[in-house]
Amino acid sequence: MSEPFAAVDVIIAKRERRELDDAQIDWVLDAYTRGVVAEEQMAALAMAILLNGMSRREIARWTAAMVASGERMDWSALERRTTDKHSTGGVGDKITLPLAPLVAACGAAVPQLSGRGLGHTGGTLDKLESIPGWRATLSRQEMLDQLREVGAVVCAASADLAPADRRLYALRDVTGTVEAIPLIASSIMSKKIAEGTAALVLDVKVGSGAFMKDRDSAAELARTMVELGSDAGVRTVALLTDMDTPLGRTVGNALEVRESVEVLAGGGPGDVVELTLTLAREMLAAAGLDAARDPAEALRDGSAMDTWRRMVRAQGGDPDAPLPRARHTHTVLTPADGVLTRLDALAVGVAAWRLGAGRARKEDGVQPGAGVEIHLKPGETAVGGAPLLTLHTDEEDRFGPALQALAEAVVIAPEGSSPPLAPLVIDRISA
Amino acid sequence: MSEPFAAVDVIIAKRERRELDDAQIDWVLDAYTRGVVAEEQMAALAMAILLNGMSRREIARWTAAMVASGERMDWSALERRTTDKHSTGGVGDKITLPLAPLVAACGAAVPQLSGRGLGHTGGTLDKLESIPGWRATLSRQEMLDQLREVGAVVCAASADLAPADRRLYALRDVTGTVEAIPLIASSIMSKKIAEGTAALVLDVKVGSGAFMKDRDSAAELARTMVELGSDAGVRTVALLTDMDTPLGRTVGNALEVRESVEVLAGGGPGDVVELTLTLAREMLAAAGLDAARDPAEALRDGSAMDTWRRMVRAQGGDPDAPLPRARHTHTVLTPADGVLTRLDALAVGVAAWRLGAGRARKEDGVQPGAGVEIHLKPGETAVGGAPLLTLHTDEEDRFGPALQALAEAVVIAPEGSSPPLAPLVIDRISA
Repeated sequence: MSEPFAAVDVIIAKRERRELDDAQIDWVLDAYTRGVVAEEQMAALAMAILLNGMSRREIARWTAAMVASGERMDWSALERRTTDKHSTGGVGDKITLPLAPLVAACGAAVPQLSGRGLGHTGGTLDKLESIPGWRATLSRQEMLDQLREVGAVVCAASADLAPADRRLYALRDVTGTVEAIPLIASSIMSKKIAEGTAALVLDVKVGSGAFMKDRDSAAELARTMVELGSDAGVRTVALLTDMDTPLGRTVGNALEVRESVEVLAGGGPGDVVELTLTLAREMLAAAGLDAARDPAEALRDGSAMDTWRRMVRAQGGDPDAPLPRARHTHTVLTPADGVLTRLDALAVGVAAWRLGAGRARKEDGVQPGAGVEIHLKPGETAVGGAPLLTLHTDEEDRFGPALQALAEAVVIAPEGSSPPLAPLVIDRISA
Repeated sequence: MSEPFAAVDVIIAKRERRELDDAQIDWVLDAYTRGVVAEEQMAALAMAILLNGMSRREIARWTAAMVASGERMDWSALERRTTDKHSTGGVGDKITLPLAPLVAACGAAVPQLSGRGLGHTGGTLDKLESIPGWRATLSRQEMLDQLREVGAVVCAASADLAPADRRLYALRDVTGTVEAIPLIASSIMSKKIAEGTAALVLDVKVGSGAFMKDRDSAAELARTMVELGSDAGVRTVALLTDMDTPLGRTVGNALEVRESVEVLAGGGPGDVVELTLTLAREMLAAAGLDAARDPAEALRDGSAMDTWRRMVRAQGGDPDAPLPRARHTHTVLTPADGVLTRLDALAVGVAAWRLGAGRARKEDGVQPGAGVEIHLKPGETAVGGAPLLTLHTDEEDRFGPALQALAEAVVIAPEGSSPPLAPLVIDRISA
């Protein structure tokens, strides 16, 4: 088969800061999927995109071409409206666990395709897999049945979903081309568009524990993704939320499931409850269901918990089974009296990862019980000698490296001198 | 074996415009040679280098690491001083053929490792291979014997010479990363340094038929290479020479051998004679042999021709055998009376290539007889209807595409109105 373009010409065009036209973009991603554009050619193109950028039109076309590389799901047979959420990843970010059943309990359908964690941020599937019996892989028919009967499904994306993105993501990971906003935005949005949700709320994290360390780049990523969603017919809004400190009081897999169940039972840490309700309202509003039912009421009356239990059971899990616990714990004590003004998200995330909650390579497994329990949150009164953190792991020799990660994580100020805390929701970006 | 660096970190450093340190550069090229740094990782790094540049120290270290990836030749056993020339490639650039035996006839040793052509510029080995029996591959011992007995050798580089450059060059070719001055300079100079010559003259071509189209980038490349040579202990100077029009009156393999022999016989086109003598004097001066013998005298008295004949014979060639001729010729006539003010080098180069003198892929062969004969050079009086060019090829259907390449190649001005011609040697750059 004769090819309409040469990969080198497309690479040189981007290298020389020219805009790629639609036909070039369609071809390069299709040819990459077919193996005609080689890995080293895509690597050079990705670096040129990272350094020279892409226009809104280019990013939209790039995303559409990645969607077109596989199948696009279609939930129009459902009576409920679909809505979903995506987080760019943070430390202690278990929000999907209470959020999906909560939004389903309020009348929407949540068809969430999710991922596993890599590095210091955990993956939603890893967390759910700590529930005995729960399985992440569902057929299309099983997804549809569960959306009809339960209203929420959180499962793994199949290999047919945006396969160009799957290959490109693995390539970017080893070629220093992850941090390109056009490529990050198109990677996330191609999967969400292919997933077939009609509405989408993006939780773009900002801060030390987030992928985006500063507000400007987080806002640029959020704007880019909102534009991409809108251009593809998905009603999309984005919240910028704080990730300088972990969300909630647990970081780890089973630890975060336990905390999520507390939220569904009407309790749980204030920040997790606040963000869950805020995102639930946004998801319902984006689906045009904002007048339907108040999510706070669904937490109080037990209907969100009911949906959670049915959702876990539908995927083979036992919501009543005891969750795994790590074999060893080690408690870190508060070093001084005063007010805790900083508990660094990145440090806690790396500590949890080193304790076994995360993986260094895709092929690695995770320890379901490993992680960090947080006894003191920023803004709370510190009492010297009282428990600050409890570390959990199955392998005692992991405590040393985890403690090393935590060496600079904590700042305690004298009582009364503490600066005001950052708000949890920093900004809201819509089309 | 545990690696001291991760490829991703080296790529990200260059992506973020940081200078790579010596250990990083040594490691990345060594690891690439060992296959630990993958092709796609080197492609991303090459694109980052192309877009973000390298410092003089980085380029020098990069070059040294490429030399160190293979063996460095050593000619200290020779009684003669070694000197060599490298051209960045032009149309009709057969200068090595008369130059190497000429400089040897003046008392130096010329150990030239050369290459084959790709694209519209011809390769020295392709030209010499049109001589019946001549072979490009010599052992180290054969090279040494020939340098002792004849004084000049032009042959193919072995696979052990800068193998990192060999792999990197093939990679750059398919990833749109050829046009990076640090990578061009280090590629050329790593091979010349590994070749073991003590002195080197660089002929950096500027103009339509050259790799460098403008004088500023040619001067930057020349300066970078002169610095690299000096830093590695090779006495190096560079000339910037014109490549807006072809050199001499022939473009092609056997056609250029014939013209080279004319020069060695004391005749030949003025521009070829001028550049050959200028480069010979520079090569002898760089080797500290400028007082030895006048190259013009060695052309007149037949000693350069003697050396040529011994050089050809030493590599299996028959200097008296008739050279191959193409099966078909087609003559292009002069369109009008006046003065020829332009004969575009790129157009003539592409025409010769399409006639079969060059190759599109490394695996292709070339036609020894194919090419273009030039009957009228810029500055000469044009007579409408007189022969302008003669095209040579073994396959008649190649005339059409060749004529297409020549459509805009010629400008004829009214008699007396012609602008002054550009000088052949534009600039000289030394350490």
